[in-house]
Amino acid sequence: MEAQLERYLNESIPLTKALGLKIRYAGPDRVLLECPLEPNLNHHGTAFGGSIVAVATLAGWIWLHVYMRERKLTPKIVISESNIQYLMPIDSKFSAELRAPTEAEVRTFSQTYDRRGSARIDLNVSMLCNGEEAAVFRGTYAALKS
Amino acid sequence: MEAQLERYLNESIPLTKALGLKIRYAGPDRVLLECPLEPNLNHHGTAFGGSIVAVATLAGWIWLHVYMRERKLTPKIVISESNIQYLMPIDSKFSAELRAPTEAEVRTFSQTYDRRGSARIDLNVSMLCNGEEAAVFRGTYAALKS
Repeated sequence: MEAQLERYLNESIPLTKALGLKIRYAGPDRVLLECPLEPNLNHHGTAFGGSIVAVATLAGWIWLHVYMRERKLTPKIVISESNIQYLMPIDSKFSAELRAPTEAEVRTFSQTYDRRGSARIDLNVSMLCNGEEAAVFRGTYAALKS
Repeated sequence: MEAQLERYLNESIPLTKALGLKIRYAGPDRVLLECPLEPNLNHHGTAFGGSIVAVATLAGWIWLHVYMRERKLTPKIVISESNIQYLMPIDSKFSAELRAPTEAEVRTFSQTYDRRGSARIDLNVSMLCNGEEAAVFRGTYAALKS
């Protein structure tokens, strides 16, 4: 499942290849992505902020895609806003970890989508390196009936 | 000058090559970057949000780098936080335009840097496509004496 989704992303979003994105796990409970440092280096020998935020952006999209697919739904998914705080430099391979929102948040989102054909949800992603949280990301994603 | 900086970024931040980044203008008054759509496509045939935010992140770094270099300073420049709002899909080549902060903001930043050896500044970037603003980005950057 992860390999198939990774192939789909590599084909339809070429930047995912440049990022070296690997999908380690993608389920409705959690998403875990991983990237090597090398293609994402900056001039300081650490990870470029633009790479970090791009990977976090993908983690949110992947979670919503997987969650909706479990419900046999294939909406158009877009990001409407995001915020990221960079806490420490990343000097090795890094991960993006998304834990599913609370059941209440998911229920509100799903009920709104079923009623209106569109809904928004806030998703939090931790960017991890060497077991430490190196950045925190929050994105607002919209699902639109397609 | 722009060509030299573009070469430096291509060599030290490999993702800039994958983005197809072109520096159209880089001065202390303004920065204008441009990217083709193709390497930045998503599965909807429009620009991937992660590409858009990565290019905006670079615009801020480039402005601060150019501004400090005019002052014969070469600090370490890092981004500490950013926010982006996506206003409409990007379906063609796109630009990142940064207009210099106000004189008062720049003066406060410079005085703080000279006194403490480190300072932060907020920078706003407009992402443009076909003459319309497609996303607005605000990043907080820190300059650290190196």
